[in-house]
Amino acid sequence: MAQQSIEWALSQGLINSGHRLRRLRGADPAGLAGRACPEGPTDRLRLLADLISWLFVMDDACDEDGLGAAPTLLAPTVAALLDVLDVHGASTDGPAAATAGPPGEALGDLCRRVSAAGTPALLLRFVGGVRDYLLALLWEAANREHGRVPEVAEYVQMRRHTGAVHPSFALTELAIGTLSGAASRTDPALVALDLLAADLVCWCNDLFSYGKENLDQADVHNLVVVIAGGRSGRDESSALRAAADRFNESLSAYLTTEAALLASGDDDLRSAVTARRNWIRATYDWSLAAARYA
Amino acid sequence: MAQQSIEWALSQGLINSGHRLRRLRGADPAGLAGRACPEGPTDRLRLLADLISWLFVMDDACDEDGLGAAPTLLAPTVAALLDVLDVHGASTDGPAAATAGPPGEALGDLCRRVSAAGTPALLLRFVGGVRDYLLALLWEAANREHGRVPEVAEYVQMRRHTGAVHPSFALTELAIGTLSGAASRTDPALVALDLLAADLVCWCNDLFSYGKENLDQADVHNLVVVIAGGRSGRDESSALRAAADRFNESLSAYLTTEAALLASGDDDLRSAVTARRNWIRATYDWSLAAARYA
Repeated sequence: MAQQSIEWALSQGLINSGHRLRRLRGADPAGLAGRACPEGPTDRLRLLADLISWLFVMDDACDEDGLGAAPTLLAPTVAALLDVLDVHGASTDGPAAATAGPPGEALGDLCRRVSAAGTPALLLRFVGGVRDYLLALLWEAANREHGRVPEVAEYVQMRRHTGAVHPSFALTELAIGTLSGAASRTDPALVALDLLAADLVCWCNDLFSYGKENLDQADVHNLVVVIAGGRSGRDESSALRAAADRFNESLSAYLTTEAALLASGDDDLRSAVTARRNWIRATYDWSLAAARYA
Repeated sequence: MAQQSIEWALSQGLINSGHRLRRLRGADPAGLAGRACPEGPTDRLRLLADLISWLFVMDDACDEDGLGAAPTLLAPTVAALLDVLDVHGASTDGPAAATAGPPGEALGDLCRRVSAAGTPALLLRFVGGVRDYLLALLWEAANREHGRVPEVAEYVQMRRHTGAVHPSFALTELAIGTLSGAASRTDPALVALDLLAADLVCWCNDLFSYGKENLDQADVHNLVVVIAGGRSGRDESSALRAAADRFNESLSAYLTTEAALLASGDDDLRSAVTARRNWIRATYDWSLAAARYA
């Protein structure tokens, strides 16, 4: 699947240099997708892997290639991609497609495949999650422009969107084979589990990538940096410990909430729980392995 | 209903000065809600009116009171309000409620009433629409900070979110009595109608408010200003004409799309169409009448 996923990214024009090809290969999007959903129909696993590839390409464009250095720089691209989402990837010959370029074409391809493989409700959920991701990138860009380190509470909230966890969970449920319905998704217990899982996936990523990002002075959008309040030096090790403590406390809360949910015996919830549990574990294992953080 | 709506805003602590009370009274949120849905159960009309009051208070806070002068200034409030949305207004004793203040309490009240009156799918739709509104306010704030006038295509896309049209349509369908399902909401014909209606509502607002905002030099977020490319003077009248032409072209497209949809005879679509048609007409009539633009 790894080769197919890279081929998709190449065929969509998402990669236009050897450096970017090596970067995406190193990030191993198919490896992460395969860990998040070890079994499932090939087309659905590929859809999840291709979403992850698209997100990695977007993240790198914003983070390392400078597109996200200021919201006014990023906004035209975000708006053009939102145009693609508004029509669920239907082809249009308006100016949007041209402005969005290959990421817009690729996003349209993802939308059309979600539409073909899933339900209308899943399509709306997917599109909504990617929309929030794109809008939240503008928040990151504003922080970068000012070298601003957000407060912890603000960071935790916004990180849920910049991590694009919700659309990833949605396509994982699709690959597993049972989509959680609206009633489950508004059930306070699943809402709580969902938020905990989203935070754990993002923070795990932050903890593993801290070494790299700190050395590069790359980005303030990391739980450790935010806890340290942007100060380096002797606060650094205590911030790293505080971030790990926070992760572990949320993991305990996750396990308690999960046990209560599974005890209810609702099969609709079982698949939703599996998707989230898989993602937490997958992120951990993949973070250890992936050359992305080498 | 006008008095009840003002009382709700007062009871939620959304208004803390005579100036703000006069401003909200002048904006007449209940008048707009009543025009958007002339009949319906009182509690649902009040819910729509209260959403509109909440949006007016937020818009004024960002636009006239300076909260939206820069994204880094606005972001803590946005994040705290997103926390409220994440748990659908369930009461929490975390720091979020305190940071969000009265707008957070009021938003929680709206979420709980939507949850009680509607379906789980409506709640998710409502919460998603308000989330996009809040995130899009950060985009506006970035433009204000730089005195930046966005390109027309970018503005048209983002205006759909800053206008909060989607959650307003959702609560209007609720008041009318038939909620469009996911299948309708992903039907390309209704998607097209929805986008046209959203644009028409926002642009109508822009055209009427242009006089006021131009005189005050208040805000670049207006279709006329964007078409003029931020230049005033002799370009102004041609920009105003171009904006009106754009409105009229979209109105024609709306009527054609609407006729085709109604000819299909699907009752699920009929209510969705009514909500959108009402909103276009309501915005026009209310704009003429409301002291907000006096």
